[in-house]
Amino acid sequence: MEVHKGLADVVVSETSLSAIVEGNLSYVGYNIDELVEKNVTFEEIVFLLWNLRMPTRKEYDQLCEDLHEHMALSESVVACLKIQCRQNLHPMSVLRTTVSLLGVFDPYAEDTDKRSVYIQAVSIQAKIPTIIAAFARLRRGLDPIAPRKDLSFVANFLYMMTGEEANPELIEAFNHVMVLHADHDLNASTFTARVAASTLTDVYSCITGAIGALKGPLHGGANERVFDMLSEISESDPIDVPGYLKKKLDNKEKIMGFGHRVYKTEDPRKKHLKRMAEQLSKDFGKEALYSLSCEVEEYLLKEKGLIPNVDFYSATVYHCFGIEHDLFTLLFAMSRVSGWLGHVFEQQREDTLIRPRSKYVGPTNLSYTPMDEEEHIGGDRK
Amino acid sequence: MEVHKGLADVVVSETSLSAIVEGNLSYVGYNIDELVEKNVTFEEIVFLLWNLRMPTRKEYDQLCEDLHEHMALSESVVACLKIQCRQNLHPMSVLRTTVSLLGVFDPYAEDTDKRSVYIQAVSIQAKIPTIIAAFARLRRGLDPIAPRKDLSFVANFLYMMTGEEANPELIEAFNHVMVLHADHDLNASTFTARVAASTLTDVYSCITGAIGALKGPLHGGANERVFDMLSEISESDPIDVPGYLKKKLDNKEKIMGFGHRVYKTEDPRKKHLKRMAEQLSKDFGKEALYSLSCEVEEYLLKEKGLIPNVDFYSATVYHCFGIEHDLFTLLFAMSRVSGWLGHVFEQQREDTLIRPRSKYVGPTNLSYTPMDEEEHIGGDRK
Ligand SMILES: CC(C)(COP(=O)(O)OP(=O)(O)OC[C@H]1O[C@@H](n2cnc3c(N)ncnc32)[C@H](O)[C@@H]1OP(=O)(O)O)[C@@H](O)C(=O)NCCC(=O)NCCS
Ligand SMILES: CC(C)(COP(=O)(O)OP(=O)(O)OC[C@H]1O[C@@H](n2cnc3c(N)ncnc32)[C@H](O)[C@@H]1OP(=O)(O)O)[C@@H](O)C(=O)NCCC(=O)NCCS
Repeated sequence: MEVHKGLADVVVSETSLSAIVEGNLSYVGYNIDELVEKNVTFEEIVFLLWNLRMPTRKEYDQLCEDLHEHMALSESVVACLKIQCRQNLHPMSVLRTTVSLLGVFDPYAEDTDKRSVYIQAVSIQAKIPTIIAAFARLRRGLDPIAPRKDLSFVANFLYMMTGEEANPELIEAFNHVMVLHADHDLNASTFTARVAASTLTDVYSCITGAIGALKGPLHGGANERVFDMLSEISESDPIDVPGYLKKKLDNKEKIMGFGHRVYKTEDPRKKHLKRMAEQLSKDFGKEALYSLSCEVEEYLLKEKGLIPNVDFYSATVYHCFGIEHDLFTLLFAMSRVSGWLGHVFEQQREDTLIRPRSKYVGPTNLSYTPMDEEEHIGGDRK
Repeated sequence: MEVHKGLADVVVSETSLSAIVEGNLSYVGYNIDELVEKNVTFEEIVFLLWNLRMPTRKEYDQLCEDLHEHMALSESVVACLKIQCRQNLHPMSVLRTTVSLLGVFDPYAEDTDKRSVYIQAVSIQAKIPTIIAAFARLRRGLDPIAPRKDLSFVANFLYMMTGEEANPELIEAFNHVMVLHADHDLNASTFTARVAASTLTDVYSCITGAIGALKGPLHGGANERVFDMLSEISESDPIDVPGYLKKKLDNKEKIMGFGHRVYKTEDPRKKHLKRMAEQLSKDFGKEALYSLSCEVEEYLLKEKGLIPNVDFYSATVYHCFGIEHDLFTLLFAMSRVSGWLGHVFEQQREDTLIRPRSKYVGPTNLSYTPMDEEEHIGGDRK
């Protein structure tokens, strides 16, 4: 009985969403390099991942209208967000809880017809930026800002964070980041969403589960920790990149933002993020952070052959956007939810329960004796 | 590239929790038949699944004390439950949200040392019955009842539902149901918890994801639907079991509570649940429901070779306990969470990211054209 620990290289599903072929990543047949270079909007990517083709102008306008219609949060959701803000907590837990709560408040959450499932998806996709921005403000004692119908998905998010319209270069850069994070084969959060979907549970359950999985440090939670690491290095005196990293490696600690299950030579998203990190760090006077990142990259490649993954340079990019570092993984979720939803639809069409087996390696044929009897085997006597 | 749809018979992990061998189910080496016959308490099973051995008296008393200490809900949690009660919703969504919320309110939710993880687990295990009972009462306009330190896990739940101490036979029967549902190899919700845990995310994230997966009708959600089906049959005039089932089968509908990925001849939990359903239905004057269940079982075996799974007779059992049918799956969760937690601990020890692959079957090498240009391929023109 072969045990496929970690399911490395085990193929679980067919998919028409994303493909990693020879180190290239494409969404429904479009290489991400082209999607970034041609400034394709995040809304187009959402349409692409949900419908497995690009939209016509009419379809695109309709999706944008639907997203705008569902961006606002109800009073009850804001009330629960306020209760949550009082605590010492991780923002990803707030996002997980609040998306779950959307399902409680959606009277059609249990409906499984095509239209209802689409509206559930739109509602989740549309409200995540509003939740993140509302939470970011509430915890600083500020009122949430309502979304605007005349702004794009990305522009709206930046506006709701600050109350001011972001400049076009920033919006374009942020759009690139969203496009680059949208989907990525059966990563652990997407797979979590698909396992849940395979029981035919509701869409909110699938996405709540995926957010919980993305939170983990071996997955999306890495971007936040990359920033912690870079801060730690830059605050030490003297700054000693090799010394810092060597110590971690010697302790067998994983360096956050490095390594990948699938990519072994280069992550195709990295070059874009690195270029953006370089540009934005200049624009915002964060050159030191960028050059520190480059040093870390060089050292780990040389010493251990480790390559940066999507989370490494995105930390610098998010920091330049002025985002607090404990919100980084929430931005990942805000983009990746488009892929999660596409995969949930695909899994619903596949209609097969995902239910593997385990290999039992524990004791066998034990006989129970009550704990107060002499012959009881339990505790340390075993 | 072989595609393992549904991961049927693919072995993903080693486990020391439960084993299905030759149609028998055992927990850490103890056959469930013996655990039920010897009236082992649910708290002993919790200890067993978390520690992979039976407790000594001292350890048992400590666990019970820890559970009692963590049963009560904070005011903030009750406040959020009240906000949720105003809506038209599924109670499993409320449980999913509220367990997620516990993670927001636990200041140690991010801590990963052994003691913190144990307290997180105890807190979740202890609070789920309180959440279910509080919700069941709040939505009927009644005040929640605080747990008591002198009652067992099961007795406390029944007490918090009604405000009266349940009689010993009922407590014993309910304890059996809890023991029978506690763990079951890599079922879809347990697997969801393990995939999430493999990213090293926090315990609340894993359990929230598992609740979402259990909710699905192909998994734990089946028990509620079994009751809907039995009600539908018994309310039709004349009652026509074969006619009703034949129509469903002809429509290729799945009959809830029947069939199993692993068991093909008999589910070892069924005989216990059937016996209890028989006894309880006599005690509570629900003989008609029980005999209807038997008729359904006989028909499906004869016509399609389909066998009842754990969810079929548990529906009758829960109904006899006086539980509203939309809470059935929550009772499943209240027990299964013990297994989920045991599996989360095991996955944390395994420390390998669960990250499978997919086989890409979509279009390739597409070139992007903006939607307003002539050559745009998108929409129906593709
Ligand atoms: C992403 C990740 C989980 C992939 O893991 P995986 O496919 O299971 O690979 P392994 O953990 O088996 O790593 C293979 C080898 O590279 C090493 N390695 C991989 N990533 C490493 C990292 N980030 N830092 C240090 N060593 C690393 C492992 O220690 C292992 O070495 P060994 O063979 O000497 O034991 C892993 O690279 C990691 O934990 N990275 C850090 C977290 C992160 O950035 N996650 C975001 C991913 S997008
Ligand atoms: C549990 C379950 C998902 C297992 O599914 P699986 O291992 O993927 O098995 P399949 O769905 O491939 O079923 C195999 C065959 O039995 C039939 N079958 C299985 N369960 C059935 C059911 N409950 N009602 C009718 N037919 C059923 C299937 O239609 C299929 O028939 P086919 O070969 O003619 O197409 C499935 O039995 C089911 O959906 N049951 C109802 C829901 C339920 O009670 N779930 C709780 C499980 S504890």
